[in-house]
Order: sequence, then C-alpha cells, then structure tokens
Amino acid sequence: MNADLIRLGENARRAAGALMVAAAPAKNAALEAIARTLEENAAEIFAANAEDIAAGKASGIAPNLLDRMLLDEKRLAGIVKGVRQVAALKDPIGEVLHAETLPNGLIVSQMRVPLGVVGMIYEARPNVTVDAAVLCLKSGNAVILRGSKDILRSNICLVKLMRQALTEAGLDPDCIALVEDPSRETATAFMKLSGYLDVLIPRGGAGLIRSTVENATVPVIETGTGNCHVYVDKDADLEKALPILMNAKTQRTSVCNACESLLIHRAVADAFGPAAVKALLEKGVVIHGDETARTWDSHILPATEEDYYKEYLALELSVKVVDSAEEAIAHINKYSTKHSDCIVSENYTTVKKFLLGVDSACVYANASTRFSDGFEFGLGAEIGISTQKLHARGPMGLTALTTYKYVVLGEGQVRG
Amino acid sequence: MNADLIRLGENARRAAGALMVAAAPAKNAALEAIARTLEENAAEIFAANAEDIAAGKASGIAPNLLDRMLLDEKRLAGIVKGVRQVAALKDPIGEVLHAETLPNGLIVSQMRVPLGVVGMIYEARPNVTVDAAVLCLKSGNAVILRGSKDILRSNICLVKLMRQALTEAGLDPDCIALVEDPSRETATAFMKLSGYLDVLIPRGGAGLIRSTVENATVPVIETGTGNCHVYVDKDADLEKALPILMNAKTQRTSVCNACESLLIHRAVADAFGPAAVKALLEKGVVIHGDETARTWDSHILPATEEDYYKEYLALELSVKVVDSAEEAIAHINKYSTKHSDCIVSENYTTVKKFLLGVDSACVYANASTRFSDGFEFGLGAEIGISTQKLHARGPMGLTALTTYKYVVLGEGQVRG
Repeated sequence: MNADLIRLGENARRAAGALMVAAAPAKNAALEAIARTLEENAAEIFAANAEDIAAGKASGIAPNLLDRMLLDEKRLAGIVKGVRQVAALKDPIGEVLHAETLPNGLIVSQMRVPLGVVGMIYEARPNVTVDAAVLCLKSGNAVILRGSKDILRSNICLVKLMRQALTEAGLDPDCIALVEDPSRETATAFMKLSGYLDVLIPRGGAGLIRSTVENATVPVIETGTGNCHVYVDKDADLEKALPILMNAKTQRTSVCNACESLLIHRAVADAFGPAAVKALLEKGVVIHGDETARTWDSHILPATEEDYYKEYLALELSVKVVDSAEEAIAHINKYSTKHSDCIVSENYTTVKKFLLGVDSACVYANASTRFSDGFEFGLGAEIGISTQKLHARGPMGLTALTTYKYVVLGEGQVRG
Repeated sequence: MNADLIRLGENARRAAGALMVAAAPAKNAALEAIARTLEENAAEIFAANAEDIAAGKASGIAPNLLDRMLLDEKRLAGIVKGVRQVAALKDPIGEVLHAETLPNGLIVSQMRVPLGVVGMIYEARPNVTVDAAVLCLKSGNAVILRGSKDILRSNICLVKLMRQALTEAGLDPDCIALVEDPSRETATAFMKLSGYLDVLIPRGGAGLIRSTVENATVPVIETGTGNCHVYVDKDADLEKALPILMNAKTQRTSVCNACESLLIHRAVADAFGPAAVKALLEKGVVIHGDETARTWDSHILPATEEDYYKEYLALELSVKVVDSAEEAIAHINKYSTKHSDCIVSENYTTVKKFLLGVDSACVYANASTRFSDGFEFGLGAEIGISTQKLHARGPMGLTALTTYKYVVLGEGQVRG
C-alpha cells in the first residue's frame, strides 16, 4: 500500500472523528475563514494558476479546457461567494429522520450523521477543489481531494489556504487534504483506500467515471453522463413542445441535463417534426434522424443505433418517430442513461404512464430537462448529479453527503 | 461476457420494467401464490434438498453447516409463514418523500421507486433463496439469485416453484431467476454485470463479502460482520450492566450483533470485572484480557492487538480496562466494524458523548446489542444488516430495496 495515502487516510479519519461532532457555528466560522483567506490571498492563487495555465499551453491543452482551468478575479469572487452561500445553508447533521418507542420501551431513532471521509476524484477544474471541500466541511465530512495534474499547482495553493483557514478557526486542518502525487498508480491506490474512505465521488467525463467504477473497492457514487430525451406525444401542446425542445437542446450543450434525443409520436410527426427541424437547423444543430424524419429536410443524417446511445454534449441530436407512448418509454429505458427525460403531453393518463414507467432519476412532464440541477431544485448546493440508484439519485445536495445511525435508548433491556 | 448471464440480465431487466409499475394487490397475489406453491410441493423440495444434504455429507461438509442447509417440515413452514408476513407488509413503492412547488411553478417531488434488478450472492442457506426473492418482489424489484453450489439442487427446485407461482399469478416469471452455473468464474462475472444489476447484496461470511467488494463493478451493499462492544462506564448501573453483557455475549453467539469485546472504566473495574468474568467463565466463555483483567482470574488469556479486531462468533470475548469514556470511544472507533456498540451508564453527558461520538450503525445506551435486527427494530422484515454508510445503514427492511426518482410537473417551463 502507498504509505503517503495511508498517512493521508489516517489523518483524515482522525479529523473526521472530531468534525463529526463539531457544532454548526464552528463549521460556519471555518467556512467564513476559508472565504476570507481565499480573498486575501488572491494574488498567490492567481500566480499558482498562471503556472498551470502556462504549462498547459506549452503541452498543447485545448483552448476550451484551458479556459476551464483559468482562475481570474471574477471566477474567484464567484467561488468565494459560493463558500458563503454554503455557510448560510441549514446544517443537515443531527436531524432525526424517524423515531419511535417500541413495545419493549426501547426508543429507536434514526439520526442524520456525516459519512466520515469523502474521496473526490475530478478533472482540471479548480472551482471543484473549493466547492467539494466546503460542501464536505458543512456536512461534517473530512475530504481527500484528487484533482487533475493539470491544475496541481492551483490545487496545492487552494488547499494550503483552506487548511490555514481551518487552523485559524480552531478546526483540524486535516479536514481538507490533497493527494499531491499526480501518478495514475496513486489514483488507482486512492480508489482502493477502503477503511479510510467511506465514499468516492468521481466528477468528470465518462472515462473517469468508468475507470473509478472499475477500479474502486470503496463505495462509489456515479455522477454525470446524461443521454436525455424529449418525447412529444400525440396529445402534446405543440406550442409548449417547441420551446421545451429548443431550451433542452440549445440553451447550453456541454451539460449532462441537455437533450440528446427527440422522440415524436407519429400522429403529430408532420405537424411538429418539420417545424422543429427547421428551428434546430437554424440554431446549427446537426440532426441524425430515422427514415420518417429524413423526409423533412435533406440535411438530416441517417441515425444509427449508436446515435441513439450517444451523449453528444454538442449542437447535435438524434430524432425518431414512434408509434405510441409505450414505444417511447421502452426506447428511453433502453437507450437513456437514466438521467432526465421529458414528455410533452396534455393527456393525463399518458403523462402518468410516462412518469411512472420511465426509469430515470428525473422525469418531467411539460418542462425542460435543463432544470435537473441542485440549485434549480432548491437544494441550495450541488455536489453532482447521481445516475446510479444507490444512496442518492439525481441532483445531490448536502444530504447526499450524509448517512444515518440508529440511536437506541434503553433502561436495561435484553433480548428474549 | 458470459452469454447465459447476459440473457438472465436481459430477462430480469424486462421483468423489472413491468414489476416497477405493478400494483400492490398484484404483487401480494403473487406472494400468496408462492406460499401456496411451496406448501403444495413440499415433497419435491425435500427430495431436492435431501440430494444436497447427501452430497454434502459425502464431500465432508461440517455438521453445523449441513444443519444450515437442511429443509424439513418445520423449517419450510417457517419459510412459508415468512412469505405471508411479507405479503402483509405495507407496500413501500409510490410513497412521496418530499414535494414542493418552486417559485417558477414547477412541482418537484421525490417518489419512492424500486431499485430495478437486485443481485444476491449468498452461502448455503436455502431459506435465503425464498426470503430474498419475496422481499425483492414485494419492493417491486426483479432478483437474480446466486447461492452456494452446495444447495444448488434445493435452489433450482425452490426457484422453479416460485417462477411457476409468478406465472400463475400473471406476473413475468423472470422477476425471480437463479444463476445455475456454480463456477467461480461465473460468480465473478455476475459481480461485474453492470447495466443489468442495479445493486449487489452479498450475504455470508467475511470472505464472501470481501471478494464481492473487491470484484464487483455493480454497486454493493456490504452486510454482516459485527465486532460489537459493550462499554461499562464509571457511572454504570452495574445491576443493568451484567444482564446486558451476558445477553449480548451469550444469548446467541454466531450472529453479527453479538458482543465480542468488553470495555470497563477503571473506576468500576474491581466492582464489575471479577463478577462479570466469573459469570462469563461459568457460561464457558473464553476470555482474552488486558493486564488488569488478567489479575481477576487465572483462566484469562492475554489479549493481543488481533483479539481486539476479532469477531469471534463464539463463546469468546476480549476485555480491556480504559481510563475514560473518551478512551472507550476511541478504542471502539478504531477496532469495531461499525455495527453495534453499547454504553452502560447513568450519566447523561457521558451517554450523549458516546452516542454521538461512536461512528457505528447502531449505538445503544443501556440495552443489549442483540436488538440490532430488522424485526426487533420494527421494520417488519430484514434483507441484511449494512455495515457501510452509503444507501442504507444498520438493519435493512423493505425500503433499503428502494430508491427515489424526482418527478417534475410543469406547464411549459424552460430554463433562463
């Protein structure tokens, strides 16, 4: 086993033990100290970030990825504002979820408690470093961060400052730690740090998620990929359908809650299809359609089986005409990533069938899939969007970083 | 990939799609059909089981394990009664956990839904075959069972009868399936059946659990091992402490909620230790004690570091004298398996500190750890006891076999 990781793990466990019982004011004071320390040391952060950017340019990292790596005044202000917003959220720890007195007099309750030590693996986005750390702190968890090597200098600086703030606020600095060795071997060993990590959350592209799921022995919360559908039913209000489709597909394309596939009921195919295709093509959307759809415009490419599985994350869309709501539901359950899927329909029974029958984290009637987001759902924060079914599903707020314990109060009871 | 497993997986997914939306009466009718079919075909079950027992005897399986494998009139009656008890439980599916209307008019609710397809891996206990199948059915999940090869004939018979009952009741027989190939390669492939299985639940000894956690790519719920503690505080009512200790250690020893380690505060060591040791030795308990404890009786063996980590599952116990409640909490957090741990104390502040500070699934004040059980906690059923923190912790009832989906009702909303 990797001795440095073991040491990080032991320190995090010790820190987590104290943080588990820390009062909300102590955690909030530490969050404010983090916000202030980041503000006061902006120059040092920018200098470290500039080195990452320069190294990234030299090694030929693409401009859009370099942009994600960049920290400037405006972005740092946004990060700091986010820290203060998290401080203002209600502390989830200690909530009693259920309590009852059993016939034998035992009082059994379920109390919300922190997970313990959270491991985060993520790509080259320095905002995630602060985001994840403060969400874990607020929910009483120690965190060990493992970001991309491309932002290692930024991360070392940000974590150093956050640890300094923890010490100033009287908390154990090991509540927030960074894996500084950027090697792939260490990343794999990190995923197997059972006994030290209680959960591993990968945030990033499909490759990172897959590698984490395949290598980890620590329980993983899968986040991310979204092959989302909009289904326009025969009883759709087409005046609603077009804005929903355009918003879901084109408002922002690189996000997991964007629409990647359009299904249209054959009964409204001619009424809706050609107009929708025209609007999409005007926005520059590349369309892969089935035979019927391809009769609407010569620019429509043929849709392959692969297209129906694809998360384009771009101005690109597959289109299919279906014969029934049942066919739409079956298609979605086969091809979607179980993230967010929408029906546009005014028919009560069809809508109910869709909402119950589509096996996705978020199912919509007559609204854009783009709302699948912790802030939009009113959770006050978001650590990611889960596409697995265990523990947390869909947008995850602070409570996704908690578990519960059974607290049993007796007066000498023994089992008969 | 293993073609037979893929076929099982595809069939289970199809069955799960329909079962997900099946009404409670349809599921309960199928459960009653299962109970009746098992009763009516008892002779066939006993014949299949007799072959397993004979083969087990021939291959030298130990008598206590053979006893676990055995099905007789009384045990089958117990199994059938269990099926009817599950049928009588409230259906957990469709419960709305939370709902609110957002400022933009979207109605967002979290609805309880089945996990989908559950994979069970377990040892040579034919009762688990029926238990797990009916709990999954009641909670709307398809299940694929992979039991020990030592009870393969019994399992083939039980699953055949349950599938027959499903068909009679009008449900898809593929709601319950069995992996009939007993090879280790197939077991490992089963653990990697991502895309078909939504969760994998291993039930059995520490070796099975470890192998599952290490090999699985499907999310796992770890169950089982319990290194449980009883801590007798300086402010303990010693009249309560002794019955609690004796119940936790000796009422049943082969179970995960039995006590494996006794901690005593130094201030009451002489008042409690010798008397407790005497009672334990009279019950035949082998004791491994620290230096102080060894002065109480010459039969006490020296406790090693390894002893403090051990789940004996036998009439065996480690004993340690501590200088404070804080030392007891730290000891438990280091050595326990985070299952069930108890403090005996009349001191309010010390009890509160213990209940919050001990990081275990079940924490007790003044009651035996033996109560950590789905039935004792009033859950009405138990699929296992989780010792991980994700998804479900402690005794797991029907709701542990469920997840939730976000249902979003709009009237044309798009994101700005």
